Amino acid sequence: MTATPRLDFEIDEDLPPSSLLYTFGGAAPVASVVPGTRICTRTRDAFAGALRHPGQLPSQVSDSRFLNPQTGPFFVEGAQPGDSLAVHFVDIVPRGTWGVSATVPFFGALTSTPETAMLQPALPEMAWFYELDVAGGTVRYQAQESTLTLDLPLDPMHGTVGVAPPLHEVRSSLAPGSWGGNMDSPEVRRGSTVYLGVNVEGALLSFGDGHARQSEGETCGVAIECAMDSTIIVELVKGSYTDWPRIETDEFWMTTGSAKPMEDAFRIAHLDMVRWMSELLGLSTMDAYQLVTQTVLSPIANAVDKVYTVVCKMPKKFLPPVSAMGGMHQRLRVAAG
Amino acid sequence: MTATPRLDFEIDEDLPPSSLLYTFGGAAPVASVVPGTRICTRTRDAFAGALRHPGQLPSQVSDSRFLNPQTGPFFVEGAQPGDSLAVHFVDIVPRGTWGVSATVPFFGALTSTPETAMLQPALPEMAWFYELDVAGGTVRYQAQESTLTLDLPLDPMHGTVGVAPPLHEVRSSLAPGSWGGNMDSPEVRRGSTVYLGVNVEGALLSFGDGHARQSEGETCGVAIECAMDSTIIVELVKGSYTDWPRIETDEFWMTTGSAKPMEDAFRIAHLDMVRWMSELLGLSTMDAYQLVTQTVLSPIANAVDKVYTVVCKMPKKFLPPVSAMGGMHQRLRVAAG
Amino acid sequence: MTATPRLDFEIDEDLPPSSLLYTFGGAAPVASVVPGTRICTRTRDAFAGALRHPGQLPSQVSDSRFLNPQTGPFFVEGAQPGDSLAVHFVDIVPRGTWGVSATVPFFGALTSTPETAMLQPALPEMAWFYELDVAGGTVRYQAQESTLTLDLPLDPMHGTVGVAPPLHEVRSSLAPGSWGGNMDSPEVRRGSTVYLGVNVEGALLSFGDGHARQSEGETCGVAIECAMDSTIIVELVKGSYTDWPRIETDEFWMTTGSAKPMEDAFRIAHLDMVRWMSELLGLSTMDAYQLVTQTVLSPIANAVDKVYTVVCKMPKKFLPPVSAMGGMHQRLRVAAG
Amino acid sequence: MTATPRLDFEIDEDLPPSSLLYTFGGAAPVASVVPGTRICTRTRDAFAGALRHPGQLPSQVSDSRFLNPQTGPFFVEGAQPGDSLAVHFVDIVPRGTWGVSATVPFFGALTSTPETAMLQPALPEMAWFYELDVAGGTVRYQAQESTLTLDLPLDPMHGTVGVAPPLHEVRSSLAPGSWGGNMDSPEVRRGSTVYLGVNVEGALLSFGDGHARQSEGETCGVAIECAMDSTIIVELVKGSYTDWPRIETDEFWMTTGSAKPMEDAFRIAHLDMVRWMSELLGLSTMDAYQLVTQTVLSPIANAVDKVYTVVCKMPKKFLPPVSAMGGMHQRLRVAAG
Repeated sequence: MTATPRLDFEIDEDLPPSSLLYTFGGAAPVASVVPGTRICTRTRDAFAGALRHPGQLPSQVSDSRFLNPQTGPFFVEGAQPGDSLAVHFVDIVPRGTWGVSATVPFFGALTSTPETAMLQPALPEMAWFYELDVAGGTVRYQAQESTLTLDLPLDPMHGTVGVAPPLHEVRSSLAPGSWGGNMDSPEVRRGSTVYLGVNVEGALLSFGDGHARQSEGETCGVAIECAMDSTIIVELVKGSYTDWPRIETDEFWMTTGSAKPMEDAFRIAHLDMVRWMSELLGLSTMDAYQLVTQTVLSPIANAVDKVYTVVCKMPKKFLPPVSAMGGMHQRLRVAAG
Repeated sequence: MTATPRLDFEIDEDLPPSSLLYTFGGAAPVASVVPGTRICTRTRDAFAGALRHPGQLPSQVSDSRFLNPQTGPFFVEGAQPGDSLAVHFVDIVPRGTWGVSATVPFFGALTSTPETAMLQPALPEMAWFYELDVAGGTVRYQAQESTLTLDLPLDPMHGTVGVAPPLHEVRSSLAPGSWGGNMDSPEVRRGSTVYLGVNVEGALLSFGDGHARQSEGETCGVAIECAMDSTIIVELVKGSYTDWPRIETDEFWMTTGSAKPMEDAFRIAHLDMVRWMSELLGLSTMDAYQLVTQTVLSPIANAVDKVYTVVCKMPKKFLPPVSAMGGMHQRLRVAAG
Repeated sequence: MTATPRLDFEIDEDLPPSSLLYTFGGAAPVASVVPGTRICTRTRDAFAGALRHPGQLPSQVSDSRFLNPQTGPFFVEGAQPGDSLAVHFVDIVPRGTWGVSATVPFFGALTSTPETAMLQPALPEMAWFYELDVAGGTVRYQAQESTLTLDLPLDPMHGTVGVAPPLHEVRSSLAPGSWGGNMDSPEVRRGSTVYLGVNVEGALLSFGDGHARQSEGETCGVAIECAMDSTIIVELVKGSYTDWPRIETDEFWMTTGSAKPMEDAFRIAHLDMVRWMSELLGLSTMDAYQLVTQTVLSPIANAVDKVYTVVCKMPKKFLPPVSAMGGMHQRLRVAAG
Repeated sequence: MTATPRLDFEIDEDLPPSSLLYTFGGAAPVASVVPGTRICTRTRDAFAGALRHPGQLPSQVSDSRFLNPQTGPFFVEGAQPGDSLAVHFVDIVPRGTWGVSATVPFFGALTSTPETAMLQPALPEMAWFYELDVAGGTVRYQAQESTLTLDLPLDPMHGTVGVAPPLHEVRSSLAPGSWGGNMDSPEVRRGSTVYLGVNVEGALLSFGDGHARQSEGETCGVAIECAMDSTIIVELVKGSYTDWPRIETDEFWMTTGSAKPMEDAFRIAHLDMVRWMSELLGLSTMDAYQLVTQTVLSPIANAVDKVYTVVCKMPKKFLPPVSAMGGMHQRLRVAAG
């Protein structure tokens, strides 16, 4: 057995927000890695660290052009258009002792937005700071306008992971799409493998937007945002393109769709699951459609971003043992140690 | 303690489909019950029993005007507009040894429909029969075009439960809405209490569309349909109107929204959860919005009916012990025995 | 030539709003007419006459259950499911000297609504009264919060015209759909013929919701509402069902779709136009699709009601002379005199 | 009066499609112009000239990565973020004697697409060639599967006009948005002035996608595509940012919105019109909302692109004489000669 290649990639926490990366595509790589590399790195929080103290509000301390900074992009050697990356999340650990959420004017699921445009005034802008107890595995909710506190389970995840988009597009790290990006799915947690289709040479992988936890849907648009110490292993699957991001865990096969209206996100994810099950189980399309109809879970990942993300989850326990991508997830689980 | 009132309500399985009830509202009650009554009854399957044998197709044996027959309506004594019903599902047991699903032309999430209207031809019409092993708790999927069989967990539920709508409307039992109806949520299973706002005197409760199991989303539009032997307890909450159906179990507070586009269904359900949590926990609206953002699950119930249904689920384990509707669910759990 | 049958149908302006008709379907006919009958009648305004004086607001004087009262339903002798009605608007004349518009809390295109549900507060409720100069053909806009006045062209129309829906449904007169209803299209004006599919014996035609004029889209949800003196001729086309309302004028063939999201309303209307042109011009479906792509106008009729309505307009001047429904519109134009 | 600066910008028709520009943003300028410059140039057709002869199909001769080539980008001297461009279309003349439309698999309003994803097979791929009679002002429709021919009015326009997007994004020329892009509005014709907000230094204006004519909605997704000889005058309005493209003609004030679902495109355009009328006429927001409700036209521009475009048109004849952008449109009309 050969040693896993390893990259320890430090980021400079002192860089001002304006110097960071806010797009998928459009930036030169910060490092080059061979497939199989374990990347140990950090991510900054969605506010680029600008929101630090109770009493601060996003609009006072952060610039709306500088949200969701990404760590990367990493150039994956040998990755060509038509291949796929497999990105395994080995560990995601909050770096500090607090996280923060906020309501941002005209952003979120229960407010009008610049696109769902209305004449009503904005909701109040507020911030909620959460104490994180990483050892104890909890985050503490503290109501602002009453005394209620609640200890919620810590469940760290990355809201964004993606590659350079196709068609020479460069997309804001606030948008999810076929390239991944800001899917805000809680399924991107420790132990998950995310498959992403490669659109440009080297793929140009980046990720960020760590959340200590979030609901499905991320209702107000801002999870419990925090900087993360994260370790991923990046692998390459040659000759197999992943149209829309797929996620594999020990328990689930998952597909995703990101679109508006939300039913289109549902359609993309569930059509992709029909195709995946057809391929993995040797089923006709109609038989796979039928199987999906009786078995999957269909959580909404985000109802707040530029477009919405829906996840389709097939429980592995329902199926005979099969493996996808040449058993990539199982191998990455072993490699993760 | 007084005995629970009980109604054994038989339905005539020999009645032709054209004689059954296919609407919420618009029909005279079949029986009158006092609040607290345990109703032991049956429901016919979504095809009104017309699809019975492998080889049959829906379009050959059933009439599209006669889908989703309802058992009821039951007149609840004392129910007035502005009140709510609490409908507790004591038991839902498949009546036979098989269930059936099918693809119906221009119906389902991954096909064009009369409203999402396109020029493409329909998908093939097919039917899948499932063996049910009620004692063993499984349903058997059998591929039509290969030899794969899978035993899936039995998880009986009712796709429809509802009352007469407001504004003198009469709505098809294919449509979900604020009155309940065809929500097709797998959360309406044994042990669940459904709260429904009363719009007309007596409420006029009916239910049906039993499923041996279904996915979230009910992708092709037809779950594993079967007749059910079901027992419910119907209670009345005076003076408290439920705008959109809510569901309570031992583990979850749940709200629902049914609308198109799907993001509107999300908005309705999650706004209602913000309001419910605000009320139950004494939180300000903004604090409740924040709490919902970090905690709820957001499964899609159906992506196929006249409008779509999204469920918002708040885990009770995250919250301090509180009770809604005067502790109705707990009392119904006890009454269910 | 035989005389046109005629029905002078008076409505009682003194009836309280609670006594009027607010649904399509679900009501006994007020009169029976033979095909070809000229019906001379009145319609009450959308507020059932409750909003009469500057200073009044809808929420103070009207009941949200009693909006859009209909005149009818009229039973058309010989009309059977599968037939179509042709309703020709001979004349639509404002009955009084004023009309009124208003903003209604949580109703309209640029506000959240009970379905596009948000946490923001409602917009202000306001009313605007318009002087009507029927002889001069103008309506006078008067700003409330400045001195601007504008004389706009009078363009009287009916927001609602429809029949009893299929599937035994009864629908609020606030909803548009395949049965017609609250389409709020300015194309339903003097000289237009509306074709409606018959779903129940006698069709049960009703209409109302007169507007002195409105924009396409009816942005705030309330046009310049006024009572009308209207004359229609009702004809019957046996054996030809109209799936979605069609409208014919001397200048245009028009189809409509009413659905959410709005793209579904577009799809319904434009698919129906492809089919209509295919039939009228003897074109293949693909050739008709191509012709529609280069020729039609696609105005939004309403962006505010229970579902949205889009109209597809094919200019007759682009086409060879053909006639639909056996030349019905031309005959009705002659009969209208 | 000083002479209008002029740029004659030739494009090389022999360049292969892969060498052309297919994005807004992300490319170095091809020329720099001072405000007020008259640019006389050409645009290639949407297929980059690959589809030339009856019998060819798009999938045989063109590459889906190389659709909608743009002419530009032009760097406008002095243009800074926060300013607006005014782009006046002086002339748009089809360069050749034919145009072409086609059905492209999984593209168009009446077919499933990669986002409105369904299991149904694609519609047939076909191409329709149109003879153009520029002098006579007609284009000839010729059915493929019957003998019908129709002479339709020539109405040349540009489907795309736009600048570099904000947030460092680079967007495909198939997408419309706040930067303009592929709006596919027939309102962008000779005599129209388009206002676009500047997001990057120099604005980086480009345009293309000429259509000999199209319907509103561009139903099958492909208008009558042709290369154009076009002349524009580019002006700069300092210190006034245009959030979403606006269009001014002698007859109309127009706003646009591009989004999904289509109701969001409606909301954006109509909210912007409320704001514009409020500003131009000194009306309160609510008075402007009311005025828009009774006056505007609301055509759909495209129902087929990455997101949909809706236009809101206010007839100038309804309003007192006012001017926007310092009378820019009137000045450009004069300059156009």
